[in-house]
Amino acid sequence: MLRVGYPSAISADLLRDFPAEAELIPIADRLDRDIEIEVWIPDPFPTRAMRVWPHLHGVRLVLSLLAGTEWIPAVVGPRVTICNAHGAHNGSTAEWTVGAIFAMLKYFPLYLDIQRSGIWKRRFEAAAQYASITGDRRPLHPPVMLEELAGKTVLLVGYGAIGQEIERMLAPFRVEIVRVARAARTDPTVFPVSELHALLPRAEVAILILPATAETQGLIDRPQLALLPQGALLVNAARGPVVNTDALVEALRAGRIRAALDVTDPEPLPEGHPLWSCPNLLLTPHVAASSPQFAPHALRIAAGELRRYIAGEPLRNVVQAAI
Amino acid sequence: MLRVGYPSAISADLLRDFPAEAELIPIADRLDRDIEIEVWIPDPFPTRAMRVWPHLHGVRLVLSLLAGTEWIPAVVGPRVTICNAHGAHNGSTAEWTVGAIFAMLKYFPLYLDIQRSGIWKRRFEAAAQYASITGDRRPLHPPVMLEELAGKTVLLVGYGAIGQEIERMLAPFRVEIVRVARAARTDPTVFPVSELHALLPRAEVAILILPATAETQGLIDRPQLALLPQGALLVNAARGPVVNTDALVEALRAGRIRAALDVTDPEPLPEGHPLWSCPNLLLTPHVAASSPQFAPHALRIAAGELRRYIAGEPLRNVVQAAI
Repeated sequence: MLRVGYPSAISADLLRDFPAEAELIPIADRLDRDIEIEVWIPDPFPTRAMRVWPHLHGVRLVLSLLAGTEWIPAVVGPRVTICNAHGAHNGSTAEWTVGAIFAMLKYFPLYLDIQRSGIWKRRFEAAAQYASITGDRRPLHPPVMLEELAGKTVLLVGYGAIGQEIERMLAPFRVEIVRVARAARTDPTVFPVSELHALLPRAEVAILILPATAETQGLIDRPQLALLPQGALLVNAARGPVVNTDALVEALRAGRIRAALDVTDPEPLPEGHPLWSCPNLLLTPHVAASSPQFAPHALRIAAGELRRYIAGEPLRNVVQAAI
Repeated sequence: MLRVGYPSAISADLLRDFPAEAELIPIADRLDRDIEIEVWIPDPFPTRAMRVWPHLHGVRLVLSLLAGTEWIPAVVGPRVTICNAHGAHNGSTAEWTVGAIFAMLKYFPLYLDIQRSGIWKRRFEAAAQYASITGDRRPLHPPVMLEELAGKTVLLVGYGAIGQEIERMLAPFRVEIVRVARAARTDPTVFPVSELHALLPRAEVAILILPATAETQGLIDRPQLALLPQGALLVNAARGPVVNTDALVEALRAGRIRAALDVTDPEPLPEGHPLWSCPNLLLTPHVAASSPQFAPHALRIAAGELRRYIAGEPLRNVVQAAI
C-alpha cells in the first residue's frame, strides 16, 4: 500500500475518488510523533503545512491543492517531486474578477454606505464620484449614477488558463480585450510584456492574472500606474508582489485610479496598513478561489495524479521534478 | 417648424441627431410662463416633469426618455400619444443584474466591512456567513469564503428585451436558466407564470425583470418567498411593487433568503424603513439604468420617433395612442 498523508481537517468523503492502492493517513494540524508517508497532500494553509513537515519522513511526492506552490520547494528540498492543482480554481478566480469589476463600475461600495445611512437621496453622491474619478465634469442630465462595462477597453495582463477563462466570461459584455503575456502569440493576438508601456494608456480596466516570478515582481510600479488613463480600474487576482504597494497607495490617494485586489504585498495585510483605507478600492483578503467547489475539485486533480503515480505514468502538473 | 420641448438640463450637444424640422425649445425646471409645444420630452425625474406640465399647451406627442412611463397617462390625459425609450437601458440594467448577483455570491458587503475594519483574519467570518445562509454546516476545509455562480439554477421571471439581455450575459457562467413569462413559448422554452410555484423551489437565483402591471403587482409575496430554497438570492431589477415589501423584510430578517434590489415599494424608500437595515441585502436606490450612455442612447431613440412623426410614419414605441 502507498501511504498518502492528507490534512485531517479535510472531510474523508471528499477522498472517495482516491485509488484503492492508497492508504490514506489523516494528518492532524499539530503532530507529536513522526509519520512515514510517501505522498503528502499539504494543508492549503502554508503555516499549518510547514508545522507538520518536520514530522514527515519518506515523502517523495507532494500534491498541492493550490495552484501557487511558492513556499514548498524551500521547505521540502529538491529531492521531492511537487505537483500543483492546476485548474482547480480557474473558474472561481475568474468569477471573482468579473464580480470585482462590476462592483467597482456600479459603485457598490458607495451604495452600501448609502444603504447603511438609509438616505435615498444620497444617491446623487454617485454623480460626484463619477465626475471625480473619471474627470468627466460635464453637467450631465440625468445624473450619472454608475458606469457600464460595455465599450471599455480591458487589458488582460497574463494569458494562462485563468486569463483565458476571464476572457471567456467577458465575451458578452461588449468590451475590447487587449492581451499581454510573457511571449507574443497570434490567433488570438497576445502582445509581449515588452509592449506593456505602449498598451497601458488604453487600459480602462487592467487585469493582472500572471504568475508570481522574479520577472513579474513589481511589474506594476509608479511608471506603469502613471501610464494608466485617469480613473482606470486595476484588478489584481494574481499575487500581491506583482504591484508595488507604496506606488498603488499613492495613486489611489491621489484619485488617479481605482483598484480591486484579492492579493496584497505584504500578505496578510497588517492592521493599520495604509492600503486598508485607500479610496476607490475593493480589497478582499485572498478569498477569490475559496468556494465550496474548491476542495472537491482540487482533490479530484490530486486523485488523478495519484493514479498516474501508482501506474508509473507521467504526472501532469509537475512544478518541481525530484533530482 | 415643429416645436419640441426638452429639459434644459440636458446638454444641447446630445440633440445633434434631431431632425432639422424640429425647433428645440429648452424647458427649465420651473416655469413662470406658459409654453406652446407640440412634442414634449419630459425630464426623466417625474416630479420635475409634472411641475412644468401645467404650463405646456398644445402637446400631442410625449417622447419619454425612460422605459417606464407609469406616471404619464394620468398627467397628460388620453388625447396625447406617449412613446417610451424602449431599449435605452437594457444593457445597463442587465449589467447591474449580473454585478449584483456576483456582489452577493462573493460576499462583497461583508468584505467591505472587513476592509473598513482593517483586520485580515476577519475573513473567516465569511465561512460562518456561508454556513448560515446556505444551511451547509459541514466542517469544510479549506473554509468557504465565497460562492460560485457556476452550477446554480437561475430563474428568469420576465423574458422581454432586458430578460433576454441578462440571459445573453449569463451565458458563459455555466448556470441553468429557467425562463418564466406571462405566456408560454418554445425555442427557447419559456414557462407561463401559472407554473411559477412549481419552479420557485429550484431557483437558487431568482431574477425579476417584468413590467409593473396590475397582474405583476405582489407577484412575489409570502407564499412565493416560502417556496424559494434556503439561501436563494432574489434580484429585483424591475419595479418595487412586484414584491410585497413586508414579506421580503420578514424573509430577510429570518435569514431565509438574500436579496439585491434596485427598486423598492415604496420608492423612494423613506428614512427609517426596515428594509434599509435587513441582513443579506444589497439595496441600490434605482440607479441601474443611469449610466453615462443612458441620455445619448435615449435621445437617439427619441430623435428616431421624431423623424417618423414628421414624416407621418408609424411610431415604434407607442405605449399610449391618442384617442
